[in-house]
Amino acid sequence: MTESRYATLARTLRKQIEMQVWLPGDRLPSLRDTCKQSGLSLMTVLQAYQLLESQGVIVARPQSGYYVAAGLQRPVRHQPDERLHAAEQIDVNDAIFDILKAGQDPAVVPLGSAFPDPTLFPQPRLARSLASAVRRMSPHSATANLPPGNEELRRSIAQRYAQNGIQVAPDEIVITSGAMESLGLSLQMVTEPGDWVAIESPAFYGVLQAIERRKLKAVAIPTDVRFGMDPDALEKALDTYPIKACWLMSSFQNPLGCTLPPENKVRLVEILQAHQVAIIEDDVYSELYFGSERAVPLKATSYRSEILHCSSFSKCLAPGFRVGWVAAGAYAERIQRLQLMSTLSASVPVQLALADYLQQGGYDTHLRRLRRVLEQRQMAMHHAIIKEFPAQVSVSQPKGGYFLWLDLGENVDAARIYQLALAKGVSIAPGTMFSADERFRHCIRINTSFEWGPHTARAISVLAALVGEEIRG
Amino acid sequence: MTESRYATLARTLRKQIEMQVWLPGDRLPSLRDTCKQSGLSLMTVLQAYQLLESQGVIVARPQSGYYVAAGLQRPVRHQPDERLHAAEQIDVNDAIFDILKAGQDPAVVPLGSAFPDPTLFPQPRLARSLASAVRRMSPHSATANLPPGNEELRRSIAQRYAQNGIQVAPDEIVITSGAMESLGLSLQMVTEPGDWVAIESPAFYGVLQAIERRKLKAVAIPTDVRFGMDPDALEKALDTYPIKACWLMSSFQNPLGCTLPPENKVRLVEILQAHQVAIIEDDVYSELYFGSERAVPLKATSYRSEILHCSSFSKCLAPGFRVGWVAAGAYAERIQRLQLMSTLSASVPVQLALADYLQQGGYDTHLRRLRRVLEQRQMAMHHAIIKEFPAQVSVSQPKGGYFLWLDLGENVDAARIYQLALAKGVSIAPGTMFSADERFRHCIRINTSFEWGPHTARAISVLAALVGEEIRG
Repeated sequence: MTESRYATLARTLRKQIEMQVWLPGDRLPSLRDTCKQSGLSLMTVLQAYQLLESQGVIVARPQSGYYVAAGLQRPVRHQPDERLHAAEQIDVNDAIFDILKAGQDPAVVPLGSAFPDPTLFPQPRLARSLASAVRRMSPHSATANLPPGNEELRRSIAQRYAQNGIQVAPDEIVITSGAMESLGLSLQMVTEPGDWVAIESPAFYGVLQAIERRKLKAVAIPTDVRFGMDPDALEKALDTYPIKACWLMSSFQNPLGCTLPPENKVRLVEILQAHQVAIIEDDVYSELYFGSERAVPLKATSYRSEILHCSSFSKCLAPGFRVGWVAAGAYAERIQRLQLMSTLSASVPVQLALADYLQQGGYDTHLRRLRRVLEQRQMAMHHAIIKEFPAQVSVSQPKGGYFLWLDLGENVDAARIYQLALAKGVSIAPGTMFSADERFRHCIRINTSFEWGPHTARAISVLAALVGEEIRG
Repeated sequence: MTESRYATLARTLRKQIEMQVWLPGDRLPSLRDTCKQSGLSLMTVLQAYQLLESQGVIVARPQSGYYVAAGLQRPVRHQPDERLHAAEQIDVNDAIFDILKAGQDPAVVPLGSAFPDPTLFPQPRLARSLASAVRRMSPHSATANLPPGNEELRRSIAQRYAQNGIQVAPDEIVITSGAMESLGLSLQMVTEPGDWVAIESPAFYGVLQAIERRKLKAVAIPTDVRFGMDPDALEKALDTYPIKACWLMSSFQNPLGCTLPPENKVRLVEILQAHQVAIIEDDVYSELYFGSERAVPLKATSYRSEILHCSSFSKCLAPGFRVGWVAAGAYAERIQRLQLMSTLSASVPVQLALADYLQQGGYDTHLRRLRRVLEQRQMAMHHAIIKEFPAQVSVSQPKGGYFLWLDLGENVDAARIYQLALAKGVSIAPGTMFSADERFRHCIRINTSFEWGPHTARAISVLAALVGEEIRG
């Protein structure tokens, strides 16, 4: 049955080409390799290749081999049957996934994106640091940079803390795969499934997902668009629920952009420490302050090590590197143990590259320029929104970061605006992403990091028109 | 109280130097920066610096600034108070953490390490791929390479599957931060806390940790040092417990080195699928086969997408890159969603570097050499063990990977041998790491990937002598 064997092989190869394992122009495995892999004779394999050639699926190039023909590939996506029942409940918000995916479409103006404009980063300089770091990389670098992570990088981060008046030893810092990991590990360390956690309302959707994933219960504390989490409401919640941890952003909160006033910082820390509640400070935006006044994290209010201060380079330097950290004080070793069980360690070459860049890449110069550009872009977009949106729409005006929070009015459904805007090539982040309930269904978050120009101007006009139509019914 | 202010600042700086935030020779922040940060006057800051100078802690260099004095630093590690009670139970094995740490000490012969000899990898070639990849990196690379990960890399992996006779579409693959993450996400997807999972006995300690972390219950299935997991025992377990998932290694299992015979592979998959049990295949060693016969994963036994096939480049190409994947079939999107909540995505530069390397780096040539070297080194160490260890000690002889499993005999306590050997500069992995109970307390795992020479020869002699003494009492 030689004939059926070669036909089977041809079908297999054709299927692989349809599944895009091999793209037009790719060279297929050689006859010899295919014989070896399949256990078939050279004659059988040759017949299969010739059959595919006769069907126009592949072409032979003399002295070189067989190649996938151009243009013949069908752009069908492989869709295997779904059989198993997945047990994980992931229903905080399916929209989050779609919105993140929409941000990958270059045709869409990504005002719904959580990422800053990627052209704002010193990529050529980072590439140089990476190239230089890997040239000097020792073969032992994989084990030498296991948790807590690269020593030079931890020291550079500790120096930046020191320059901001915060005492953190390099040994208290654990390098992670982005702030998402450091926040997740911190939450895991201080809670057990079923525990209560105090969070902001609205909150960064990653908080909601992490809480759901760990089967925790959340108390959403009212959070003001200017002054952040309400200390009185927090105190009441602490007296009512056996809260184990509080996860919050003290500067340029996502999505509101709010920053805690100094006196509220002190009071919040006092309240939480009096109730022996762990503090997880998500502080990824604090480098992006406008003007000359630095953002001061909760971590600076006391030297107490209970504040798990989580940050990263993803918002201000190198989004794709996925390098973050937690200043975990006495808990650094526990965090390391949890990390060893989840991702083992952060990627080594990018740690070395950042260590090099922080030493000599001009990070502060970059940050100064970045802050200035973000401030200008926020102003331009804020101005346009005030001018073009209906008068009932209120807009935040944060002193840092790159988000604006718009309250469109009770009678507007932001999820509908999201759908209509996406159809017109503009993404936004609807308020429902930032809460487990419908409380913010009439709000949206807008990313202001993109250059003000025809695309962004058109995007704002599109949104303003949609909101106007929605209000007028 | 100017005097107390400058003294306070001097104390703060001195503390930072003691905490190793600033190392001998480091330049301290300029007077101007320190004024700005602290809000103190130039005079106060200058007095503080001069006080430290008079104490010999720092030195002034004209026209340059103040530097930490050489040799005056106290090597004290900062030890903040530990106050919070950490809620996570991590008691599978504290020894695991210590053993991983011991592997970082260059003075120890790391026979207990899970990592292969780092000099076995084509690091200069990988560095070239990395440098070339980052030069070509688009600013949009961070969002373009969000889960499922870099498309070229996924296609290269799919091509390698195809060449091994396994049909996997690039879209079914999700790139992760090492196999640890892909295994963890897979386990999370198919289980809920409290569920039962079938595992090998002994098992890779990462399995035990992941199960404990997710609050699962484990059924340990007897696993033979040559033939792997016992299908009859598995069938009995499936009839007794409501098992949701089975996590196993089909080739060169860690720690035993066993490989499932082809008929057992087919039977195990049939049994598991008949019971609708999810299969998580941890397949990180299968590229490291000896001789000419490839290792065939369970995934190859059927095209059914229920087998979550997890692997990485950490054991055979680039340990420090932390890049792995899962071929998740229809569940690829669910895995992506879980990943977005935990680490967001794998580091982008290293994904691009591996995509480049797999296209043109000579991976197969590297693997052929690596397999040959590992086989030679295993032979040398196996030979020495047979020759030097007491006759009651039995030794495995796997056909791939780089671990030997030694049964020292019921009367030997491997944990004691571990401690004694470490004191003599040799690490081993005691059997207690690979089980939740004491069942393997008389066994050890030895890493054979290191070059046979004076160091390794001495290490084996040290171990043989210790075991001999222990047996003789």
